[in-house]
Amino acid sequence: MHDPLSRCSWCNLSDRDRQWLLFETESWSVFLADEQDYIGRCMLVCKRHCAALSDLTTQEWTDLKQAVDRIEVCLKTALHADLCNWSCLMNSFYKSDPPVPHLHLHVRPRCKQPVLLNGSAYPDAEFAHHYDPKKKSVLREEDRMALFKHLKAHLPL
Amino acid sequence: MHDPLSRCSWCNLSDRDRQWLLFETESWSVFLADEQDYIGRCMLVCKRHCAALSDLTTQEWTDLKQAVDRIEVCLKTALHADLCNWSCLMNSFYKSDPPVPHLHLHVRPRCKQPVLLNGSAYPDAEFAHHYDPKKKSVLREEDRMALFKHLKAHLPL
Repeated sequence: MHDPLSRCSWCNLSDRDRQWLLFETESWSVFLADEQDYIGRCMLVCKRHCAALSDLTTQEWTDLKQAVDRIEVCLKTALHADLCNWSCLMNSFYKSDPPVPHLHLHVRPRCKQPVLLNGSAYPDAEFAHHYDPKKKSVLREEDRMALFKHLKAHLPL
Repeated sequence: MHDPLSRCSWCNLSDRDRQWLLFETESWSVFLADEQDYIGRCMLVCKRHCAALSDLTTQEWTDLKQAVDRIEVCLKTALHADLCNWSCLMNSFYKSDPPVPHLHLHVRPRCKQPVLLNGSAYPDAEFAHHYDPKKKSVLREEDRMALFKHLKAHLPL
């Protein structure tokens, strides 16, 4: 038998992924997302290999609220986000057979005013509308570290 | 001063909305959604006028898990959903000035095999991909009550 967890890249995050870790709780790791379609997009990854929200333990669910509160307050403070778009989708895992889903959530801050970062302005052209799921990353690579440090500096205690 | 809650249609759900109530918990009402872009799509509406996940109380968050578990198990049992797509977006409220957001979550069951209902087959053409946010309702109106009853019959206790 092949161990499915050994095939799960979310159970085996690389150092490259981990360099963008904003904070962690007992059960969750919160990263600045690779795909910056909306500036400040983050991912909350369950530390345990778990397939669905309904599979979370009470402790993991309670702990998720702490992570949600902390990153939502951070995005509202640091980027003046008016709201946050939350999603937990898991679709891509089901392209494999058998699927090896690993629970994670996406959060996209949505900002009426352009985000100002490192001298660049990033407007949200779809504000007040559904995020564009096909939108490509808009963040200039030279601004990624500035964004990461800016968010780190605005994480509530 | 105009009371913002009197302008909130989510605080004042009509009898027409309420006829599709699947179940409720202390803090949440769970409805079959009007928009059946994916068969079995439901909405979880916070009973309190509340703007964001980070504004939920501990009790409301704990109670949300019960609602999530119940509807996710129901959708997997009744429709053979392989997974559920969860989202909490709130974008449309921000078309108004001032916005009067009322917290709710969407859940779209995603099914590899077509859902069979009342003699009709409903395939999920985007399975393993992001739901199409512009997709129109696909449910035949004559199948809506059958779907509602089918879900009610599969709600876990």
